[in-house]
Amino acid sequence: MDYSALSLAAHLEWGGKLETVPKMAIDSKDALSVAYTPGVAAPCLAIAEDYAKSFTLTQRKNTIAVITDGTAVLGLGNIGPEAAMPVMEGKCALFKAFGGVDAVPLCLRTTDVDAIVETAALLAGSFGGINLEDIAAPRCFEIERKLQERVDIPVFHDDQHGTAIVVLAALTNALKVLGRDISQVRAVISGSGAAGTAIAQLLRSKGLSDITMTASRGIIHSAEPWLNPATRELAKWTNPRGLRGTLAQAVNGANLFIGVSAPGILTEDMVRTMSAEPIIFAMANPTPEIMPQLALNAGAAIVGTGRSDFPNQINNVLAFPGIFKGALSVRAKRITEAMKLAAAYAIAELAEERLSRDRLLPEAFDPRLGNAVAQAVAAAAGERDTL
Amino acid sequence: MDYSALSLAAHLEWGGKLETVPKMAIDSKDALSVAYTPGVAAPCLAIAEDYAKSFTLTQRKNTIAVITDGTAVLGLGNIGPEAAMPVMEGKCALFKAFGGVDAVPLCLRTTDVDAIVETAALLAGSFGGINLEDIAAPRCFEIERKLQERVDIPVFHDDQHGTAIVVLAALTNALKVLGRDISQVRAVISGSGAAGTAIAQLLRSKGLSDITMTASRGIIHSAEPWLNPATRELAKWTNPRGLRGTLAQAVNGANLFIGVSAPGILTEDMVRTMSAEPIIFAMANPTPEIMPQLALNAGAAIVGTGRSDFPNQINNVLAFPGIFKGALSVRAKRITEAMKLAAAYAIAELAEERLSRDRLLPEAFDPRLGNAVAQAVAAAAGERDTL
Repeated sequence: MDYSALSLAAHLEWGGKLETVPKMAIDSKDALSVAYTPGVAAPCLAIAEDYAKSFTLTQRKNTIAVITDGTAVLGLGNIGPEAAMPVMEGKCALFKAFGGVDAVPLCLRTTDVDAIVETAALLAGSFGGINLEDIAAPRCFEIERKLQERVDIPVFHDDQHGTAIVVLAALTNALKVLGRDISQVRAVISGSGAAGTAIAQLLRSKGLSDITMTASRGIIHSAEPWLNPATRELAKWTNPRGLRGTLAQAVNGANLFIGVSAPGILTEDMVRTMSAEPIIFAMANPTPEIMPQLALNAGAAIVGTGRSDFPNQINNVLAFPGIFKGALSVRAKRITEAMKLAAAYAIAELAEERLSRDRLLPEAFDPRLGNAVAQAVAAAAGERDTL
Repeated sequence: MDYSALSLAAHLEWGGKLETVPKMAIDSKDALSVAYTPGVAAPCLAIAEDYAKSFTLTQRKNTIAVITDGTAVLGLGNIGPEAAMPVMEGKCALFKAFGGVDAVPLCLRTTDVDAIVETAALLAGSFGGINLEDIAAPRCFEIERKLQERVDIPVFHDDQHGTAIVVLAALTNALKVLGRDISQVRAVISGSGAAGTAIAQLLRSKGLSDITMTASRGIIHSAEPWLNPATRELAKWTNPRGLRGTLAQAVNGANLFIGVSAPGILTEDMVRTMSAEPIIFAMANPTPEIMPQLALNAGAAIVGTGRSDFPNQINNVLAFPGIFKGALSVRAKRITEAMKLAAAYAIAELAEERLSRDRLLPEAFDPRLGNAVAQAVAAAAGERDTL
């Protein structure tokens, strides 16, 4: 199907994909007097006396902001805030459809780190959480950190952590299918942006210590002159073998390839240099780092991609609706590593009943998914992480 | 009815009065591919190439932001952003119920003029208009002016202009019922805040030149030492008779009283000093400047209030939904005086078929209202006022 033409026509018909719909009929003076003046003064005063009530009496209970600056939208790059809006509206639609979470898309007319942090911080009293979206690395790291320090609601950059959580879920089940332990994994992550960095961090917290990362200029090594501050940080704790060179040098002998980088950069020949029966997660969109059939031909045991038309779609939508649903349910102040791990295991667990090399993950439309992730995330939130 | 108790219980049950609801079902991979990736890249690119398309392909077509700093909420004063949210959600519910306009409530954690302007300006690419709400005077004037200079969508402080528009509608019909001309009106406006100032400005633009304004400390006269910059501006063009003193001195001999001030400050004795059969609009909420029956006993020809339980409720809800509906329909860049006057006349006209001293205005639930105001506003927008 020509999704481009269909989508353009549909967007013109929709004129915005979201509606803000009142939960009550406003069809009489009495209804107006309860939902609005004079009755509304009562919940206002209740919140003025007890701030915590803002999480039970207003939209903060179930509403998050989806905030972007439009600098890293899909594979389109820096297209600006207005052009980013269709993606953000779509993201909000998924939050509602898969997690029952109300989400408001806000595209900012600035790319300045401090201006983005300030704007989001001033808005934090209106929401129960903030999902950062499609903000380019390395600015996204600083924005997330600074904003989380400023506000008392969870800040979550989905391009980082959502991706990392679903990769961990897929890897957990891939290792189970193959009967391997995570301590035996020798990983290469191609791509050192938002997603690659978060994947490395989450896998490390799970005990995967042998991670080599590559950027477009080659293997990340502390001696390389082209490192930026963010990749210099990565160089401190990745690449334990001290490898230098290109992606080909990195994957030689590895048994896990995770790609969040560029189309077609992993060749069949490179796969053949990996250790026997490697796991390949080639998630560049829409064209993977290697097409699944080529990877399988070259000896891969398991292949996953970001696409819905191949087996093992590694898709954030498995994670983010349930994560915020769970965080909101316990009034979380932040999303901790424990909550992320719990989300990953909840996702992995749902696939167990029919687990195979071609079925590592549950379907996005699995009706149990949102609640399962939400409950796991809520249970993993510590007392100090909630209001 | 005890609206306070009912409202508190209802707000707890609702947990936020608005839902963000997708306009499409997301129940299949094809649906996902049209509303989200990969199809969504097409509308994104279309907007990146042609900015104007953001008003047809995204929520900018029909969505406005309702922005407050929580400093002048109802009669509650400065209760802060979180406590202001129930009112803002209610306002958004009215926008949808009466105008079909999607509205997003945003309560800001700052009362700084420039920070509010900056925040709203950075958000302007996500919306088709901005309704400022419950921001205290005189800051509201500066915020509205500075923000409108920064953005290419209409900025409208409803507490000022919505009130002024409905007052003009009510006055137009009151004069018609009584067979008087606006040039014969000698007006006193009690209250020199957001609403009083805007009422004075709009009535002046309609040819009412004899306006005296009072603040809590008395008649606004350029020689008074207690004027602030905003009231000093008013002193330049109001009070043509050069009156000094209190409200009692101001109303003596006047034939129109407009109150947007404080409960009970207009006495029967004061009304008796006004010229024969005065018009009294006593809009302090919930307790008017004078109760209707007292004003009628003292000789008033017509009385209006802000309350739904007396005749002639002078209520902004008659205006703001249709004003933004009309402005959005023509992609207005601002709301001009001509558009405000057109809104006032459209409202007045709808009451004409059953016009009487007790029925100056249409019902808020009149199903023709939103469209009638919207069409009048759209028709009054000049070519230079739209995108």
